Amino acid sequence: MPDSIPANSVGIVTPQTLTFDEPLELACGRTLSSFELVVETYGTLNSSASNAVLICHALSGNHHAAGYHSDDDRKPGWWDHYIGPGKPIDTDRFFVVSLNNIGGCHGSTGPRSINPESGTFWGRHFPPLRARDWVHSQARLADRLGIHQWAAIIGGSLGAMTAMRWSLEYPERVRHCVVIASAMKLSAQNIAFNEIARRAILSDPEFHGGDYLEKNTSPRNGLALARMIGHVTYLSDELMGDKFGRELRTGSFQRGLDTPIEFQVGSYLSYQGESFSGNFDAHTYLLMTKVLDYFDLAREYDHDPVAAFRQAACKYLVVSFSSDWRFSPARSREIVDALVGANRDVVYAEIQSTLGHDAFLLPNPRYEGLFRAYMNNVAFEAEQLERAD
Amino acid sequence: MPDSIPANSVGIVTPQTLTFDEPLELACGRTLSSFELVVETYGTLNSSASNAVLICHALSGNHHAAGYHSDDDRKPGWWDHYIGPGKPIDTDRFFVVSLNNIGGCHGSTGPRSINPESGTFWGRHFPPLRARDWVHSQARLADRLGIHQWAAIIGGSLGAMTAMRWSLEYPERVRHCVVIASAMKLSAQNIAFNEIARRAILSDPEFHGGDYLEKNTSPRNGLALARMIGHVTYLSDELMGDKFGRELRTGSFQRGLDTPIEFQVGSYLSYQGESFSGNFDAHTYLLMTKVLDYFDLAREYDHDPVAAFRQAACKYLVVSFSSDWRFSPARSREIVDALVGANRDVVYAEIQSTLGHDAFLLPNPRYEGLFRAYMNNVAFEAEQLERAD
Repeated sequence: MPDSIPANSVGIVTPQTLTFDEPLELACGRTLSSFELVVETYGTLNSSASNAVLICHALSGNHHAAGYHSDDDRKPGWWDHYIGPGKPIDTDRFFVVSLNNIGGCHGSTGPRSINPESGTFWGRHFPPLRARDWVHSQARLADRLGIHQWAAIIGGSLGAMTAMRWSLEYPERVRHCVVIASAMKLSAQNIAFNEIARRAILSDPEFHGGDYLEKNTSPRNGLALARMIGHVTYLSDELMGDKFGRELRTGSFQRGLDTPIEFQVGSYLSYQGESFSGNFDAHTYLLMTKVLDYFDLAREYDHDPVAAFRQAACKYLVVSFSSDWRFSPARSREIVDALVGANRDVVYAEIQSTLGHDAFLLPNPRYEGLFRAYMNNVAFEAEQLERAD
Repeated sequence: MPDSIPANSVGIVTPQTLTFDEPLELACGRTLSSFELVVETYGTLNSSASNAVLICHALSGNHHAAGYHSDDDRKPGWWDHYIGPGKPIDTDRFFVVSLNNIGGCHGSTGPRSINPESGTFWGRHFPPLRARDWVHSQARLADRLGIHQWAAIIGGSLGAMTAMRWSLEYPERVRHCVVIASAMKLSAQNIAFNEIARRAILSDPEFHGGDYLEKNTSPRNGLALARMIGHVTYLSDELMGDKFGRELRTGSFQRGLDTPIEFQVGSYLSYQGESFSGNFDAHTYLLMTKVLDYFDLAREYDHDPVAAFRQAACKYLVVSFSSDWRFSPARSREIVDALVGANRDVVYAEIQSTLGHDAFLLPNPRYEGLFRAYMNNVAFEAEQLERAD
C-alpha cells in the first residue's frame, strides 16, 4: 500500500460491468447470446470523442491497468507506470478504456461464468476464441461508449496482436496502433513452451478432465508450473543473473534429492507461480495461450503480411526490446518490413534493455521518452479534431 | 534396426558390471560402502595403456555410447556418430571406456539400487552427488582397468563439466580434456529451468513423497514434463521452426479448451517426454540436474577460474555451437579465457550450427573434421608413448 496515492496516479478507480444483450458471433462459428465486459476508464471523453485510447491486455492481464481499487491496495494496475496524468498515456488528455477480454477470469464473460443454456459453469465448454473475437467485442464496447474512432489502440505482446488485428478488421476506426514487444505469429519455440504449460494444467489430477469448478477445486499446481515456465521466458538470462545469480535460499546446499527449491531463482519463480495460480483460472490460461498460438496476422491474406497491412489505414508505432527472446526484435522488424511494404506510416524503436519481454511493463527512460513523444503527437491530433468538430 | 550393422560401427557390445567392494567417500560427507559401475569398452588397450579414452555422459546419458546391444537394436549408442573404427574417436586406435555414472538408472549404483543397510531401494535416501564423486569413482575404474593416465577425457554438457573436474582433481592422470558445449557453471536461467523441471516431478502425486518405487509406480507425468522443458532448451528456435514450424497435428485447429496437444512441435515434445519417462528414474533426474546446478568449477579456488585451471596439466579442446543458448559460446569463451590466463594449451572452435545444444551429439562436417584432427594428434601421441614404453 502506498502511504498516499501518488499525484500522477489516476487515483481510485471503480470497474464497471457492461452487459451486452446481443449475440456475438465468434470466429469458431459459435455464438455468445449475450456477454459482459468489465471495464475501467481513466480521463474524460471529449465532446467529439476524438481522444479515446483502447488498452489491450496480454496473456494474464485484465481491465485494471492503472490506479488503485481502494486505499488499501498494495499495488496499482498493471500499466500504471505508463497511464496517468502527465504520463505517456496522459489521462489529462486522453480518455483511456481498459477491459478484461471475454474468455478472461476477472469478471468478463469467460469459463468461470455461468452458461445461460446449461445453468452451470462454462468451464471447458467455453468457445475457443481468436483475437478477432476480442476485436469485435471491443467494437461493441466502443459503440456503447460513443467512440467511433480510437485515437490509438495500444498493446504489448498478445495485446499488440489484438491491436494489429483491430487495424485490419476496422481500418476506419483506428488512427494509431501501438505494437509493443509483439510478433505477427509465434515461433515454434514459443508454441512449444505453451504446449508444455498446457500439458502441465491438463495433467494435474485436480483438473478433473476440465470439471474442476464443479468440484470446487482448481489445478493449482499445474497452473503454477505453467506460469513458471512462462515467466522464465519473459525474463532475460542477464536479468535473472543480475537479480538472483546462483544464490541459494538457505546460503548452503541442502542437496537431498527431494529437498524442495534450493536456489533463489527457483524460489522467486515458485512464489510467482503460486500467487498466480491462486488468482487465475486454468481454462482462461488454456484459452489465452491458444489465442496466442493461433494468432497468425496474415493467414487470411494468403500468408502475405504486406497484403494484410494494405487493409489498414492507421499509423503505427512498433517497439521491441533488445533482450526480449520470447518476442525478439527480429519479429518486430518483420512487422516493420511488412508495414513499409504496404506503404503504411511506421515509427520503429528497438530499446536497449536487460529486462526481457517484461520490459514493456517496466520503467525505461528511452522507451518512456519515445512513447511519450509519440502519444503527445496523438493527443495533439485528437485536440485538433476536437477543435475542428 | 539397421538392415545390417554398418562397417564403421563398433558392432555388438556387451555392458559389464564391475563391483567395487571398497568404500567411496562422497563430497557430501557420506560414504558408499561399495558400488557397482556398468561399463562398455570399445577397441583394445595397448600394452602401455597409453591409448585409453574416457567418455563422460551428460544429464540423461548412460554407458551405451556406441554400437548395438543386439541385432534387433533399433538405434546404436548415443554417440555412435563419433565413436567407432575410423571415426573421430577411432576405436582402431583408442581403447574407449564409457560408463553409467553412480546415481544413474542404467545399472550403476543409484537410487534404484538396494541400499545394503536398509535392504530397500535407496530412492530419495541416495546421497546427493557432485561431479567430483563421479571423477573419484571413475578413477577407481581406471585403476581397475590398469589405466594410469587417460589419453583423453571427453564429454559434452554435464559430461564436459566432469571432464574439466577430472583435469583439476587428477592432473597427472589426464593428457587431453575435450570440453564440448559446456560451461564453468550454470546461469540463473539454466537453474530456473531445472528448478521447474524438479518441481514438476516432486509435485506429481505419483512421486509419493519420494517413495514411488516401494509403491511400484513412477511420477511419469512429472518426469515427462521435466524432460519436455529440458528438451526445448536443447533445441534452437531456428531448428524447431525448420522442423515443425507452426504445423498442426490434424491439419486444422481443434481449438477446444481441453483438446490435447495440437501443434506438431508439441506432439514431438510430448513423444520425447513420454518415451523418456518410461525409461528413466525420477530420482536420478533430480540427482543429475542437481549435480549440474551445483557445479561451479572455481568455487573451491576462491571463485577464480584461472587459479582453478592452474591445477591442471593437460591440454584442452573446447568446442561450442553458435545456436546453443543453453550452454552458449559465451560460456565456452569464459573457459578459454581462464585456460589462457592459466597458461594452459587450448584449442577453441565455435561451430556454426542451427541444432542448438543437441549439436554436440549430431553430425556436422566442421565439428567432425576438427574433432577428428584433434583426436588424430591425441592418438599419434599415444602411439609414440607406446613405442617409447
